[in-house]
Amino acid sequence: MDETRLSEIVSQIQPPDESAMAQARARQDGLTKPPGSLGRLETLSIQLAGILGESCPTIQHKVIVTMAGDHGVVAEGVSAYPQEVTAQMVANFVRGGAAINVLARHVGARVVVVDMGVAADVSMYPEVVVKKIAPGTGNIALGPAMSREQAMCALIAGAEVVESEIEQGLDILGVGDMGIGNTTPSAAIAAAMTGHAPAEVVGRGTGLDDAGLARKVAVVEKALAMNRPDPTDTLDVLAKVGGHEIGGMAGAMLAAAAHRRPVVVDGFISTAAAMIAVGLAPQLRPYLIASHRSQERGHGVMLEWLGLQPLLDLDLRLGEGTGAALGIFLAEAACKVLREMAPFEEAGVSKAA
Amino acid sequence: MDETRLSEIVSQIQPPDESAMAQARARQDGLTKPPGSLGRLETLSIQLAGILGESCPTIQHKVIVTMAGDHGVVAEGVSAYPQEVTAQMVANFVRGGAAINVLARHVGARVVVVDMGVAADVSMYPEVVVKKIAPGTGNIALGPAMSREQAMCALIAGAEVVESEIEQGLDILGVGDMGIGNTTPSAAIAAAMTGHAPAEVVGRGTGLDDAGLARKVAVVEKALAMNRPDPTDTLDVLAKVGGHEIGGMAGAMLAAAAHRRPVVVDGFISTAAAMIAVGLAPQLRPYLIASHRSQERGHGVMLEWLGLQPLLDLDLRLGEGTGAALGIFLAEAACKVLREMAPFEEAGVSKAA
Repeated sequence: MDETRLSEIVSQIQPPDESAMAQARARQDGLTKPPGSLGRLETLSIQLAGILGESCPTIQHKVIVTMAGDHGVVAEGVSAYPQEVTAQMVANFVRGGAAINVLARHVGARVVVVDMGVAADVSMYPEVVVKKIAPGTGNIALGPAMSREQAMCALIAGAEVVESEIEQGLDILGVGDMGIGNTTPSAAIAAAMTGHAPAEVVGRGTGLDDAGLARKVAVVEKALAMNRPDPTDTLDVLAKVGGHEIGGMAGAMLAAAAHRRPVVVDGFISTAAAMIAVGLAPQLRPYLIASHRSQERGHGVMLEWLGLQPLLDLDLRLGEGTGAALGIFLAEAACKVLREMAPFEEAGVSKAA
Repeated sequence: MDETRLSEIVSQIQPPDESAMAQARARQDGLTKPPGSLGRLETLSIQLAGILGESCPTIQHKVIVTMAGDHGVVAEGVSAYPQEVTAQMVANFVRGGAAINVLARHVGARVVVVDMGVAADVSMYPEVVVKKIAPGTGNIALGPAMSREQAMCALIAGAEVVESEIEQGLDILGVGDMGIGNTTPSAAIAAAMTGHAPAEVVGRGTGLDDAGLARKVAVVEKALAMNRPDPTDTLDVLAKVGGHEIGGMAGAMLAAAAHRRPVVVDGFISTAAAMIAVGLAPQLRPYLIASHRSQERGHGVMLEWLGLQPLLDLDLRLGEGTGAALGIFLAEAACKVLREMAPFEEAGVSKAA
């Protein structure tokens, strides 16, 4: 049944509205500035017009979903932080003290915290949306992260979160993560889907030293050798070397696109989720906006595979949706330029000779 | 008398507060995120702490001064737009229809429009601060842009604008320009002060074709040969190949730093003004924040000379302070992260092993 549901969502993702894009492009060229002089803000406004299906779109309701999950692979010593931090940070999100809370407030976005697979009970926080697939994944160095059924369940759960938020108002979606150890499955997904060697896509995460980095590369190599994820079967990749929150994020992206909402991708983990989502539905790609280039090694390879050019390069490597919050600010700026600037005729400004 | 005034302003520019910076750095390292994981937002917050002299600064009053001036060198055919556009755009600024109005509203900044040397009367707009040095500069291909006295006058006028705004509340200053033809004097300043050949620093401005670009390079070569600006005498450079708005912008930057206010530099013309300001007061440099890398050829050379790394690279080439507005948003984000995020102890989050 979940499979039918996923097929439905995927089939609802339509190409961007070419007519709205053409109208947006024509309007941009008539605004009181040299054509093209606002660079990527102009191209972004045209992309948003196509996604939202309006020649002059408005972004009002901004939502960042931050999906949390734990990872059995932390037993291999792949993170600088203990596993308990995932649940502690969920509590920090609820109290509004994390970076994503600060940046979401700054850009006027609401944060929706989702428990996709935290290895502790966080149901005492009524603000947390509980969609727990399991209390943490299996250790991918020893076996699969989860079953195929659980992977499907994670995708549908993520989609449901977004569908529910759309009912409350959602014009743009930012997608972020929290999960100690989750750069390891993300690197495994990148290696499995792009064919790059683990050493080329594994980075220092929250701050590994050289020995830790070498250990992490070996763990990803072992995870791939042990599980043999099939790159032509995206669900297989997610189940074998993914994560609950990664599946949830991918499902959230698919549901947003199915409802013609733009998706602002955050950093390394969010981009791994975007790869899963695009693997399941290649027509999702034009709905994606890459907010920033993460400092995490391997992010560039993932963005290239997706064909996305990030908006920002601020050496961020935090996750949570922090880069996505900044990207949402730029998306809103782009729409406001398109809508609020005066055209040459109205303003009585002469055009170029 | 203006010379005494300038010396006073320059002598008031003190080094950043090292103690506030050390406290800000320590606080950043104790916030609930891996140390350094917010990258340039963290370093920016520390720079702002040093400038504002507070370990945890707040940015409330945001001001963008957009300085307008005309240029006699347009007679050489160096711009795609007619000179009348400068005054028409001033009117557009007053009515709120220009890109800078839209982006300043988006970031909550007020725009102060200054007539430093528009070749038309714009005094019918009460919102415009009139500091007109002359109705346009001389044609730098034939002689100096202005006299040494006028250059000094432009610097002081720019400083006065900022001093007046500080009285009304100004925690951060963005500096932008409007002036048809003003990429030509800016390129001449860059060539004069860095020693680079005009061909290396002259770009297409608002949209010159190849023939126009070649003509513009020849005009800058002629301006330098004709005027022989002395790079060891910054006032001489400003007077011979500068502009009224460029002098005003440089004076604004100096006054802001003299009052310990951060200065967000916009694009090509704003950066030329920053070079003039740093030439007059090298201790200004730590007060400068480069908002973005302009698409205009030569901007990289200028940023390198100043030792500044831009925050954004969005292919902008509009001016007006548009990039500075986006930079102000990031500066405010950096301060909010520093102030509003919970420390590890308070949040009950475990630190790295």
